[in-house]
Amino acid sequence: MLKLFYDVRTCALASHIALQEAGADYEIIRIDFRSSAQRNPEYLTINPKGRVPALATDKGILTETPAILAFIAQSFPQARLAPLDDAFAFARVQAFNSYLCSTLHVAHAHRVRGYRWVDADDAAALAAMKKKVPQSVGDCYDLIEREMFIGPWVMGSDYTICDPYLFTVMQWMDGDGVDVSRYPKLQDHLRRMSERPAVKIALSQERE
Amino acid sequence: MLKLFYDVRTCALASHIALQEAGADYEIIRIDFRSSAQRNPEYLTINPKGRVPALATDKGILTETPAILAFIAQSFPQARLAPLDDAFAFARVQAFNSYLCSTLHVAHAHRVRGYRWVDADDAAALAAMKKKVPQSVGDCYDLIEREMFIGPWVMGSDYTICDPYLFTVMQWMDGDGVDVSRYPKLQDHLRRMSERPAVKIALSQERE
Repeated sequence: MLKLFYDVRTCALASHIALQEAGADYEIIRIDFRSSAQRNPEYLTINPKGRVPALATDKGILTETPAILAFIAQSFPQARLAPLDDAFAFARVQAFNSYLCSTLHVAHAHRVRGYRWVDADDAAALAAMKKKVPQSVGDCYDLIEREMFIGPWVMGSDYTICDPYLFTVMQWMDGDGVDVSRYPKLQDHLRRMSERPAVKIALSQERE
Repeated sequence: MLKLFYDVRTCALASHIALQEAGADYEIIRIDFRSSAQRNPEYLTINPKGRVPALATDKGILTETPAILAFIAQSFPQARLAPLDDAFAFARVQAFNSYLCSTLHVAHAHRVRGYRWVDADDAAALAAMKKKVPQSVGDCYDLIEREMFIGPWVMGSDYTICDPYLFTVMQWMDGDGVDVSRYPKLQDHLRRMSERPAVKIALSQERE
């Protein structure tokens, strides 16, 4: 059985929703960041990066949301979560997810994890990073709304692994000081995602 | 014919080497960052992100290094640049590339592109970011050397799309203040990569 290591309100939700959409047999294991459980020696043997998500499979551990999402799509082809037979269309899906991972999520992380990139005791630099987040994250959503989002789903008529990932990072908009109403297409996507049974189940499992 | 938009010393080199390894029919088009060509309206119609690489295909434009690398591997299967028939092994390849993109490249970018995450006129915050780069980038290489690199190639006995990407980011080590000799396995990889005909050709084409 697949085991997903997660914490609430992290990007692990994207993989969780995808597992649920795929009809996978899985369980979820919470790594509680409030007690720094991601730094426990036991968890570091699972994921030496000390991050979530990590997905334990019968062949070994996988990390990194874009890689896990593509793995789920390829492992459960009947769920049609990605255009697996079209290298170009698959690459567009991957490019979208890579952008969320390496640009949007990174911009967001400067609000509370700025110590990754400056000394942890440099309060002024940490504050400077925090201050820029509404703009840097907002710029990402501007680009997504204007250039990348096709509609009704991210990649057009077909729901893909891009959709749970976008839904997941949008959970952080309020905290990042980005007003969702500036992005009508994304706001509509958020509403429709919230209504999907797989999303409701995943959110409810993470709350238990 | 495939067209790769690049500038010298950028991560576009990874896709360039992969195209060469794949035996692809391609041309390269330089987007000169010294004249901010990546912000020209003409280029923004190709890649609204104003970044490189971008790969023009007969179906449209692709961006994001991990997505382009997987596309090249899938489009030229005879080149055996990724384990295409094994979803788990493919996901390991993708996880490695996603880490380079979203963690190592991001840490590196704080040296000269800190304005992405703080106000461009906040000299103190920009300096604080720059100061941390040797440590944050060095930590990435520690993890790669210790946990991720299998050898002799990144993924073990088979050369994959991870190898040109690792070689590419390692070009920045000197500038980032990271001493390659701290990483014997990676240093050996760098040397062997430098000897590959595809790497020599790609580097020479970018110099012309």
